[in-house]
Amino acid sequence: MDTRTEIIAVGSELLLGQIVNSNAQFLSEQLAEMGINVYYHTVVGDNAGRLKEAIEVAQKRSNVIIFTGGLGPTKDDLTKETIANVLGKKLVYDEEALASIEQYFIRTKRTMSENNKKQALVLDGAHILKNDFGMAPGMAVEVEQKIYMLLPGPPSEMKPMFQNYSSKYFIQTLGIQEKIISRVLRYFGIGESQLETDIQDIIDEQLNPTVAPLAANGEVTLRLTAKHTDEMVANQMLDEVEQKINQRVGEFFYGYENTTLVEELFKLLIGKNKTLSAAESLTGGMFSEYMTGIDGASKVFKGSIITYTNEVKANILGVSEKTLETYGAVSSQCAKEMADQVRKMANSDIGVSFTGVAGPNSLEGHPVGTVYIGISAEGTDTQTFKFNFTGTRNGIRIRTVKYGCHHLIKLLSQIE
Amino acid sequence: MDTRTEIIAVGSELLLGQIVNSNAQFLSEQLAEMGINVYYHTVVGDNAGRLKEAIEVAQKRSNVIIFTGGLGPTKDDLTKETIANVLGKKLVYDEEALASIEQYFIRTKRTMSENNKKQALVLDGAHILKNDFGMAPGMAVEVEQKIYMLLPGPPSEMKPMFQNYSSKYFIQTLGIQEKIISRVLRYFGIGESQLETDIQDIIDEQLNPTVAPLAANGEVTLRLTAKHTDEMVANQMLDEVEQKINQRVGEFFYGYENTTLVEELFKLLIGKNKTLSAAESLTGGMFSEYMTGIDGASKVFKGSIITYTNEVKANILGVSEKTLETYGAVSSQCAKEMADQVRKMANSDIGVSFTGVAGPNSLEGHPVGTVYIGISAEGTDTQTFKFNFTGTRNGIRIRTVKYGCHHLIKLLSQIE
Repeated sequence: MDTRTEIIAVGSELLLGQIVNSNAQFLSEQLAEMGINVYYHTVVGDNAGRLKEAIEVAQKRSNVIIFTGGLGPTKDDLTKETIANVLGKKLVYDEEALASIEQYFIRTKRTMSENNKKQALVLDGAHILKNDFGMAPGMAVEVEQKIYMLLPGPPSEMKPMFQNYSSKYFIQTLGIQEKIISRVLRYFGIGESQLETDIQDIIDEQLNPTVAPLAANGEVTLRLTAKHTDEMVANQMLDEVEQKINQRVGEFFYGYENTTLVEELFKLLIGKNKTLSAAESLTGGMFSEYMTGIDGASKVFKGSIITYTNEVKANILGVSEKTLETYGAVSSQCAKEMADQVRKMANSDIGVSFTGVAGPNSLEGHPVGTVYIGISAEGTDTQTFKFNFTGTRNGIRIRTVKYGCHHLIKLLSQIE
Repeated sequence: MDTRTEIIAVGSELLLGQIVNSNAQFLSEQLAEMGINVYYHTVVGDNAGRLKEAIEVAQKRSNVIIFTGGLGPTKDDLTKETIANVLGKKLVYDEEALASIEQYFIRTKRTMSENNKKQALVLDGAHILKNDFGMAPGMAVEVEQKIYMLLPGPPSEMKPMFQNYSSKYFIQTLGIQEKIISRVLRYFGIGESQLETDIQDIIDEQLNPTVAPLAANGEVTLRLTAKHTDEMVANQMLDEVEQKINQRVGEFFYGYENTTLVEELFKLLIGKNKTLSAAESLTGGMFSEYMTGIDGASKVFKGSIITYTNEVKANILGVSEKTLETYGAVSSQCAKEMADQVRKMANSDIGVSFTGVAGPNSLEGHPVGTVYIGISAEGTDTQTFKFNFTGTRNGIRIRTVKYGCHHLIKLLSQIE
């Protein structure tokens, strides 16, 4: 089937500019990777008449029509009703969805209002797409050689639904043959323009696989994309280009796809059977929050002490008054003591510390962006690292945490 | 003129999901504030045939059609050419734009290629919108009682052009008198469908101001929008509806516009001159990270202890072994001791604690989502709160932090 896809987002909040249509971006990216052509995006408000007209326009020019939004419990939510009307289909209760909505209210001890039941209504004969993160199920129907797919509006529900259920539906229904295989390589500690300069000739000469760099949040990723009818061949093509690239910039490579520095750190801690604790000043808990965001973090992460005042640095963490007076909190001496102390107090193999100036004001005479990281591990000298970051308060905090992970990964990689 | 506006973004990069259509959001917000109704967004690729069809669809349903993108120098840029073709208009050189493009190349000592001149072509008879931050001018023409406005794609060029020139064009051409004033009310602790049920009659009977609910991240917002020629009267109209709504659901109201629970908590701590510390288990530093994300947090936030193992709960925070053995870490007794202990150790006025099961696995026999929050303040009994949340690991952690803020705000609101 030669696909001509249109994505119709339903929601007045989009037309008022309250939110941006990030759903259309996500779906377009996913569909592009599957080789499904997207030709139009449309946004229409919570208005049955105008939605009906938009559907009729889409029916003339598209054969795959994906709707996002308007599946909720309120009177504004009228996507299903309008599509049912246009297609001449009935709405029926999906028993599984109804049971799961009732269970949700029992579990959360809240009262179910009648309009919540509405979310379990589906188009008669539709293929149901399970909602693992919300109440309204998605669905797909095929009518007169056109596919209509309805997805919920909240990205936290829509994205996993698409990845887990919608994409499979498309692969089966459209009989997709040519495989498009992508691989993302992640780099830290090198700027985008440097990395691009280092591998410019590889980027230029490649047509299949393509190599696309992207910089975000202080990291650089390369997306390699290969097309072939045989998945194994496509993967071999990716292997070759990856090897070629990492011969040049491999020292900055840290992982694949959506991994993060924290996740790679976690894997290494598990693999080397080491425990970690943290003492955080300028990062205020960000490192700990990232670590504990990972399932199973408690196996390797014991805890941390957030010392947002010198009083807490001295009284709870036990940094010596002398260090704070002589060198100040923004010093390698303080970073060293913080890392040593938290390691001992938490009885962990490794202790990491973060102290410095996140801004907006300078501190103890040090400009915004001055940061010290300490790493304490048994049997080795405690290391400290100094940085001069630029950027916003939050940007500095994020970079600090990432460099902490980066140096912990380096240390752990060297341990037997 | 009763406006029915459509925004057409032209660019294949949008349909590939490489960028999000932030231009449509910006324009929608600006137009809404001017009282110009936006009924549709459309995105179409760099393809003359499909763009022509999209224009024909827009001509049937809209009378103000705003285009973004496709005004650049390359072969892909065909917005002007296609519109000229549909409207039967010629393209002519705009002398001012041509001179400014030539000046640009002289100034930057670069050679001007012939295709750069293409950017100075405008629709014959168009009102020119100056581009102060790029080369391609914007333009507007009125044909058969429809306005066609062409704006450049890069937001850095489009936004100032709209604010400085397009908006004036609309005010003059459409004779806009009425002011549109919006106000966002934020609620926490009540579900969207419950809040809507509670105020359904107010929503239904209101035409001016309108009342629009929106749910995101466990919070509900109401956007009130009033139209009046006199801004003061519009504000009074908003005051009245706000009062009416908050007579019913005021206990869940926490702030206006883009504020957050953490920010409101921070303001109250400053206002009441109180200090805070935290003991976090399942939230793993998220509460501290949110608090310290605010400029000036060190004035009121002393620090925290992240106890990701029972060992750290006992050894660093000093939760009694007996409590951990008898009741376990997931208990109101443990939450109480954690809050009391951290308040004493950090020498703060208030201590807050978070303990429970973020998932994915149950803990100590408690299902995922079981959460206890403790709040310890001098001179009052320590309070604990129990919750049964559902959702993802991260969703549970976020909701826990938000409920912590919610209850701290309640406590502080009652303090003199």
